[in-house]
Amino acid sequence: MDYRKESLKLHSQWKGKVEVIARTKVDNKDALSLAYTPGVAEPCLAIQKDYNKSWELTRRWNMVAVITDGSAVLGLGDIGPEAGMPVMEGKCVLFKEFGDVDAFPLCVRTKDVDEFVQTVYNISGSFGGINLEDIAAPRCFEIEDKLKKICDIPVFHDDQHGTAVVVSAALINASKITGKPIKECKAVINGSGAAGIAIAKLLMTLGLNDVILCDRTGAIYNGRENLNSSKAEIAEITNIGKAKGSLKDVIAGTDIFIGVSAPGVLTEDMIKTMNPNPTVLAMANPTPEIMPDAAKKAGARIVGTGRSDFPNQINNVLAFPGIFRGALDVRASSITENMKIAAAYAIASLVSAEELNEEYILPFAFDKRIKNTVAQAVAQAAKKDGAAKI
Amino acid sequence: MDYRKESLKLHSQWKGKVEVIARTKVDNKDALSLAYTPGVAEPCLAIQKDYNKSWELTRRWNMVAVITDGSAVLGLGDIGPEAGMPVMEGKCVLFKEFGDVDAFPLCVRTKDVDEFVQTVYNISGSFGGINLEDIAAPRCFEIEDKLKKICDIPVFHDDQHGTAVVVSAALINASKITGKPIKECKAVINGSGAAGIAIAKLLMTLGLNDVILCDRTGAIYNGRENLNSSKAEIAEITNIGKAKGSLKDVIAGTDIFIGVSAPGVLTEDMIKTMNPNPTVLAMANPTPEIMPDAAKKAGARIVGTGRSDFPNQINNVLAFPGIFRGALDVRASSITENMKIAAAYAIASLVSAEELNEEYILPFAFDKRIKNTVAQAVAQAAKKDGAAKI
Repeated sequence: MDYRKESLKLHSQWKGKVEVIARTKVDNKDALSLAYTPGVAEPCLAIQKDYNKSWELTRRWNMVAVITDGSAVLGLGDIGPEAGMPVMEGKCVLFKEFGDVDAFPLCVRTKDVDEFVQTVYNISGSFGGINLEDIAAPRCFEIEDKLKKICDIPVFHDDQHGTAVVVSAALINASKITGKPIKECKAVINGSGAAGIAIAKLLMTLGLNDVILCDRTGAIYNGRENLNSSKAEIAEITNIGKAKGSLKDVIAGTDIFIGVSAPGVLTEDMIKTMNPNPTVLAMANPTPEIMPDAAKKAGARIVGTGRSDFPNQINNVLAFPGIFRGALDVRASSITENMKIAAAYAIASLVSAEELNEEYILPFAFDKRIKNTVAQAVAQAAKKDGAAKI
Repeated sequence: MDYRKESLKLHSQWKGKVEVIARTKVDNKDALSLAYTPGVAEPCLAIQKDYNKSWELTRRWNMVAVITDGSAVLGLGDIGPEAGMPVMEGKCVLFKEFGDVDAFPLCVRTKDVDEFVQTVYNISGSFGGINLEDIAAPRCFEIEDKLKKICDIPVFHDDQHGTAVVVSAALINASKITGKPIKECKAVINGSGAAGIAIAKLLMTLGLNDVILCDRTGAIYNGRENLNSSKAEIAEITNIGKAKGSLKDVIAGTDIFIGVSAPGVLTEDMIKTMNPNPTVLAMANPTPEIMPDAAKKAGARIVGTGRSDFPNQINNVLAFPGIFRGALDVRASSITENMKIAAAYAIASLVSAEELNEEYILPFAFDKRIKNTVAQAVAQAAKKDGAAKI
């Protein structure tokens, strides 16, 4: 099927993939007086008296905003706020289908960090959570950091953390097969935008000590010229050996390759220089950094991609619906590192020891157990971290 | 029934009066590839190429934001953004039920006019219309004016214009009974906030020449001390005789009383000083400026209130759902004066000459004809005004 052509046709028919419906009928005078004036004055006053009641008397408890500035939509780049909306609506559909979360799509018409932050903060009282989406690096880091400081609800940039959680889940299970504990592995991450940097950080929290990030110019190391703020920051805590050179130069002797970059940049020859039984997660979309059969031929023990037509799909939908479900269930004020780690282990746990093999390190996206398993683990971690308000 | 007590109980059960649902199932790989990646890239690119496609390929064509700052909620005053949300959700329910419009509730955490305007403008690409709600005067005027200048979608402050449209419809039909054409009437409007000023303006567009607005200090006239900007502006075009004094002083010799003020401020004695067969629209909620029986006893020919338990309810729900339905149907870029006037005549037209009487000058809120009748009139006026984009 030509997905893109067919999708355009369907979008013309759908006329929007989300819809707002009323949860109560207003078809007579009494119903009107209860859902609206004069009755509605009472829940209003109850919230005025106790701000926390806004999670009980309005939809806030289950409502997440899916927000973009349209600057890094899919692999399409900066296509503008309104053009990003089909993706935001799609994300909202996934939130509902996979997490029972009400999600509402919003695009913001500014590229100014502080104005974006102020806009989102100003409307944050309408929501129980903020999912940032498809915002270009390094702006996305600053936006998320600033919003997390001022909002009393979770702020989560899925391109960073959703991806990082699923990659972590994949590596937790991959290490069971290869027998190499994550903390003893060397890894290289090709691509140092939002996803690459977040993956590096979460894997380090998971115990990874030795990780090198690469961008188009090659390995990132402390002191390299022309690093933007986020790369300069990550350079301080990664690449402990200060390796320099291209991907080809630095991949030799590593155990894990993680690609969030571009089609075809990983060759069979490069994989042959890696340590025995390497794990290759080649997530460029739609064409991976290397095709799975070539990677296998070159010696990769485990191969994952972003695609549903190959084994081991690294798909964010495994993570964000359950993470928000769990966070909303305990009215979390933020999504902490421990909540993300808990989500990664929860996802990994859904592949039993008996089922686990090179072609099956992650549960399938449509596995019905995922939502509750992830949500419960996340909620528990939120409580442990003191992030849960109920 | 104790509506307020019962309403609070119901709100606890509803846990939100609106819900976001998915308009397409995503329960298999193909569906996922069509509603989300990789297929969704195509509608994104189509919008990037032609901005107008955002009204065809996303829900924008039918989506209205219902936005408040929580500063003038019902008669409760400045109760804060989050506390206003039960009303916003209620309004969204009415939009859906009475207009088939998807409406989403938002509260904005700022009292600064320019920051509010910037916030709403920044997210306006996500919507087909903006309904401002429960924002205190005079800030509401400035906010609406500024937003109308910069937005390419209709911006409509319902507390002003919805009320003005329904009052106009009421007076169009009242004049048929009293035999006094609006342009020959003298009117007094008690209350000069958002609604009072908008009513004065729309009635003047309808032909009313002689109208006096009053606030708590009495009649507003050009040059009076202590007028805020909106009152000073309206003083220049109203009260042509420069009448001074209290409501009691200036109501004598008028034909129409319009109250958007406070319970009990209109007395039988005042009505007795009005011209014969006066019309009294006493819309303070929940207790009118004068109770209908007392007004009748004092000589009022026609009496309307804001309440559903008396005849002639002046209810905004007669106007805003159809106005937005019509505006969205032709993708109007704004809601013009002619569109409002068309809505008023459309509402009035639903009471036939045979049915029209002192106790029935407006259709009932649940009259199923209202939506289409108003929408068609509004759409036609939009086309005439060049405000319609399709």
